[in-house]
Amino acid sequence: MNDVFLRACAGRKTDYKPVWLMRQAGRYLPEYQKVRSKVDFLTLCKTPELAAEVTMQPVDILNVDVAILFSDILIPVEPMGMRLEFSENRGPIFHNPVRTAADIQALRAIDSPTDVPYVLEAIRLLKQSLKVPLIGFSGAPFTLATYMIEGGSSRNFIHTKRMMYQAPDQFHALMKLVSSVVTEYLLAQIRAGVDTVQIFDSWVGALSPHDFEQYALPYVQEIIRAVRQAERKVPIIYFAFNSSGMMDQVKKAGADIYGLDWRIDIAKAVDQLDRKYVVQGNFDPCALFGTRETIHAEVQRILEGARYAPNHIFNLGHGILPETPVDNAKAMVDAVHEISLRAL
Amino acid sequence: MNDVFLRACAGRKTDYKPVWLMRQAGRYLPEYQKVRSKVDFLTLCKTPELAAEVTMQPVDILNVDVAILFSDILIPVEPMGMRLEFSENRGPIFHNPVRTAADIQALRAIDSPTDVPYVLEAIRLLKQSLKVPLIGFSGAPFTLATYMIEGGSSRNFIHTKRMMYQAPDQFHALMKLVSSVVTEYLLAQIRAGVDTVQIFDSWVGALSPHDFEQYALPYVQEIIRAVRQAERKVPIIYFAFNSSGMMDQVKKAGADIYGLDWRIDIAKAVDQLDRKYVVQGNFDPCALFGTRETIHAEVQRILEGARYAPNHIFNLGHGILPETPVDNAKAMVDAVHEISLRAL
Repeated sequence: MNDVFLRACAGRKTDYKPVWLMRQAGRYLPEYQKVRSKVDFLTLCKTPELAAEVTMQPVDILNVDVAILFSDILIPVEPMGMRLEFSENRGPIFHNPVRTAADIQALRAIDSPTDVPYVLEAIRLLKQSLKVPLIGFSGAPFTLATYMIEGGSSRNFIHTKRMMYQAPDQFHALMKLVSSVVTEYLLAQIRAGVDTVQIFDSWVGALSPHDFEQYALPYVQEIIRAVRQAERKVPIIYFAFNSSGMMDQVKKAGADIYGLDWRIDIAKAVDQLDRKYVVQGNFDPCALFGTRETIHAEVQRILEGARYAPNHIFNLGHGILPETPVDNAKAMVDAVHEISLRAL
Repeated sequence: MNDVFLRACAGRKTDYKPVWLMRQAGRYLPEYQKVRSKVDFLTLCKTPELAAEVTMQPVDILNVDVAILFSDILIPVEPMGMRLEFSENRGPIFHNPVRTAADIQALRAIDSPTDVPYVLEAIRLLKQSLKVPLIGFSGAPFTLATYMIEGGSSRNFIHTKRMMYQAPDQFHALMKLVSSVVTEYLLAQIRAGVDTVQIFDSWVGALSPHDFEQYALPYVQEIIRAVRQAERKVPIIYFAFNSSGMMDQVKKAGADIYGLDWRIDIAKAVDQLDRKYVVQGNFDPCALFGTRETIHAEVQRILEGARYAPNHIFNLGHGILPETPVDNAKAMVDAVHEISLRAL
């Protein structure tokens, strides 16, 4: 198995830098579109053979060094008692948003083997055939809670923050429950065979650093502590999107690897992480709309910027956009491999 | 005239901290809604008496220390040759987005006295009756260019970045033209009587720090240099929204005062600005959905955090949201005045 990704996760030296792309299995790939044209999004997530198939696609097509399970962060939330729909136009919708103490009371913890067996089955299928490591993942509690409280995506998170400020006990009760779900879900994925886990905190950048420390960070810390107790130890990646102004707070999460978006100079981020942590990311997904030359130059700039980190897993700073030309994604992966192989 | 705002802008000591709210004249106020119910948004912007009326509303209602001209950042862009519409659902729309060299060629510079006389007339009216200083403003070139290129608001700014990377000469030609418009527009506002100008870079946070320095910062610097040549010297505020990870770059703009959103600890921001610059902002607009107690505590926390800045103009970190309870906005203003008066 190609172990460059896992060596990098461990902060060990690698012959070249591993690379993958957030949402690398997805709408920008014609091969994915072909599978997706036959089933709706939720069915795709819940059919292990199909989820495994699209998970593997970018490994061959792009030559990335690691696969990430095709799924959605809301998958473990649905069996908590949330009525989930993926609308083509409006994105994810929960038809019963959580606003009151009674709404929270009505939710339940999940048992992954019985509630989301398809996720674990997809992992087992993938581990039989993948030639690269497999990343499992979960949304972080704050991010998942925003979807539950808002009833879907949100611009300003008014309902979430109103609950935080006006009914903090209620908010913390919800966060506690969601955290227990995330922990069980990640441990189940590890038992099923994933080699690394990533915790996506996509919306935590909506919080001030002070609120992050009050309302979100303790739950991430709790989950990471619990995941470290797994029988099989795996590296833990924490990706707090749009949190460039609060690296001091983010780095308290207790993860092994920190994801970075593109809103911070990577050399500065490495310094703010005390040069102690492996970093992941930093390439603006929109830089894939440039030319081969601009992509090459940007890869080089970021690789150089990360040189004082224990290691660097190259990635986008956010999910690849559906409009992205596949050839440009390939050009980025090739540039990472070529430049980092030469430079080492 | 209440001069606490202008004293603070100059970095001088004040008896209490001045405070205003971005978008303080707006949809959250019933008094504004009443005026707005009679005319559409663009007509309101273009009718000096009405623009002046809504500009003054929050001064009395909220007791803020400064007024900001009611207008929109796209007002000076329309006469450049852009067909502007404000859609109730979709926000601002330019029906002829700028995508090609020919599109840019077709644009023209503006002459504020002939192209946007209503803006200057509103300023003159306001200066006759306001008992607080008046802020004039403009969008920054990058932010204005995104609207022109995308044809309206955008989530990922793909068209903008595609032009940046694939046709940099074209992008820079557009930025140069927009910068000349912004400069002329701000100088005209200063001649008409505004006491301070603020440059809003609402979307510059979409850029990496490296791209910010390449594609946006030089134009802001150029504008600020030119505005400093005005016969009447006024303080210059630069507000780069969502740029907490790149304060090192932002502070090169050359402004007197830097706006801060809520995604950075204000004490840290003050340090990153070398304790040299007056800061403005930092209160999460969503914190206005809390209780009187949580609002009071948050005001206190932010005021204390800013203590090593030459001075601090209290403000939200982004525009006040239409759903905001007016009483909570008042509670914030009162808390700023009371706490800062006691603490000094």
